[in-house]
Amino acid sequence: MSYHNLPYEALRGITEAIFAKSGFSPEACWRIADNLLCADLYGIESHGVQRLIRYFGALQEGSIDPKALPVIAHQTPISQVLDAPRTMGQVAAAQAMSSAVAMAQEHGIGMVCVRGSNHFGIAGYYTRMAQEADLLGICMTNTEAIAIPTGGKKAMLGTSPIAVAMPADPIPFWYDAATTVVTRGKLEVYNKIDKPLPAGWAADENGQDCADAQRVLDNIIGKRGGGIFPLGGFAEETGSHKGYGLGVIVELFTAVFAGGTTSPHVRNSGNADTSFFFCALDYGLFGDKGEIRQRMSALLQELRDSPKAEGCARIYTHGEKELEARAYHLAHGIPVNDKTLEEIRRIAAYCGIDPASFGL
Amino acid sequence: MSYHNLPYEALRGITEAIFAKSGFSPEACWRIADNLLCADLYGIESHGVQRLIRYFGALQEGSIDPKALPVIAHQTPISQVLDAPRTMGQVAAAQAMSSAVAMAQEHGIGMVCVRGSNHFGIAGYYTRMAQEADLLGICMTNTEAIAIPTGGKKAMLGTSPIAVAMPADPIPFWYDAATTVVTRGKLEVYNKIDKPLPAGWAADENGQDCADAQRVLDNIIGKRGGGIFPLGGFAEETGSHKGYGLGVIVELFTAVFAGGTTSPHVRNSGNADTSFFFCALDYGLFGDKGEIRQRMSALLQELRDSPKAEGCARIYTHGEKELEARAYHLAHGIPVNDKTLEEIRRIAAYCGIDPASFGL
Repeated sequence: MSYHNLPYEALRGITEAIFAKSGFSPEACWRIADNLLCADLYGIESHGVQRLIRYFGALQEGSIDPKALPVIAHQTPISQVLDAPRTMGQVAAAQAMSSAVAMAQEHGIGMVCVRGSNHFGIAGYYTRMAQEADLLGICMTNTEAIAIPTGGKKAMLGTSPIAVAMPADPIPFWYDAATTVVTRGKLEVYNKIDKPLPAGWAADENGQDCADAQRVLDNIIGKRGGGIFPLGGFAEETGSHKGYGLGVIVELFTAVFAGGTTSPHVRNSGNADTSFFFCALDYGLFGDKGEIRQRMSALLQELRDSPKAEGCARIYTHGEKELEARAYHLAHGIPVNDKTLEEIRRIAAYCGIDPASFGL
Repeated sequence: MSYHNLPYEALRGITEAIFAKSGFSPEACWRIADNLLCADLYGIESHGVQRLIRYFGALQEGSIDPKALPVIAHQTPISQVLDAPRTMGQVAAAQAMSSAVAMAQEHGIGMVCVRGSNHFGIAGYYTRMAQEADLLGICMTNTEAIAIPTGGKKAMLGTSPIAVAMPADPIPFWYDAATTVVTRGKLEVYNKIDKPLPAGWAADENGQDCADAQRVLDNIIGKRGGGIFPLGGFAEETGSHKGYGLGVIVELFTAVFAGGTTSPHVRNSGNADTSFFFCALDYGLFGDKGEIRQRMSALLQELRDSPKAEGCARIYTHGEKELEARAYHLAHGIPVNDKTLEEIRRIAAYCGIDPASFGL
């Protein structure tokens, strides 16, 4: 598989054009492209334009409706539940975080749960909306079940990512991570290059640690048991029950609060039935914002400056890699693999868009 | 080292008596004993009466003042910052969570940060206060630095526990875990029995994975570098950066919000300068409480009922082990080791209390 470095603007342009031809409003097209290209700029290929084919499939089978918008199912001055069946995840999620930000600006905090939506891209995109409004942002999503609970052998929880963003200078704090050891995409990469999985990544159909990526993936697809281990790996000895519990917490804040479908019951096709949680928090609730921001900046600087382990050149704080990757990819283009480029060209042609008009 | 099974009431009685003789109010004595014995009943020996010697030392050196009470430094309808220098951690923490609960009952949410206090025992004790008021509870604390950031070799973060409690039937959800792989207590246990540390637990003075518990502990005491790895272990491959980020988040909600001392600067002696975060959340903000509670109960039951891994008899949900241990220890006594029993007797005698009057 080879990669092509494609200009950001070209990829963004064709992405917006494809969604426009699919019936989305200009605002929705802007949002979806902004979210997908954000992932590609960060170097998170799995959540970038390579997902176009899946979103397009969901649109065609009808599990995403381009005109569907979230409806308020419950509302208080500081909280909201959005019922969002067949909505595009990015559209529902951005509306939800915008509401949370508005509530936080008025009342100090805003919390919004969404049910029935679809995959929303990277969680860190939405927490950044809060951070850019000088608030702390929190975001979680459930997904179809792929993680097994400690001691189990059947996938019962999603990858259950948690994202937290907080303003800081010169580098904001952007945390965005699954509460599993890895995500399915990593298993697929190891499978492609035929590399054995490290210990503590994934379980076979009997719930045992398994190095065979092909077997694990086949089992997941065939629903024969097994899956990915929670952060902390296979056993309590390495903290497996801690990651497992974080996964339950994500399920609680998303599907349980929202009245959505919990991960064991999320249906696979089209990734529908997904629940989200968003929180925007005005950290001025705890005192002078300038001082709090300065303390956070100092902590992060101390971490970056602290002594390095033998063989390590650098200690990163969360968000640094993404910021550097963004700058690099804006300047040098976004690496897109053969298969993804071919898919984009095919979808574009199907929509009556000439890829060449975007230089692709 | 041998263990004695001692009755709960006797241990609780002598603990309250010791704190009463040390100058604490009857309410404070009740609270401290309730917290310490709660840990012992759960089987968490490290946070139970074996800590008496450390608290007593801090009282004698003056880093804990039995008459010190938290003072409100900042207040909004849904948030509070408590300045709590030289307070007993349990006293400040219980006051803080009580305030959070009262705010949540009136406004839907209450968040309280505490700065300058001391070790508060187990975090899960305070989240249970919220859960018993039919609220969701969250608690975090920073500690002196013992965890190294991914790629580092110097301890910069605490064990950074996160506790979350949520009502559910028949078993509430009680999550309470460090965001490091293990805590220092586990290293001490392995050192005592001369067992090599599992891979991914602790770093030597050069930041490399180290199986020698004695060396790691000596380095920690001598401040020669090294420490415990974040949840996820040594490398990004197993998710080290995820646990590291969770540690930063705990530092943010505790010391950074509270205006307290961040972990790299928490002084060792007496464990003073500790910051806490408490949140009580009325989950009725998201709809009918009965329905939400029922959904959480169903999720937990499904997890417990899901297929077991080969060699595993049972899948636990968080809180089950603690509830079962509590019932067992109430019926059969609390195992206290020789050394701890001897310390309790010595402290009691110093305070003019006859251990025999408590049957000890």
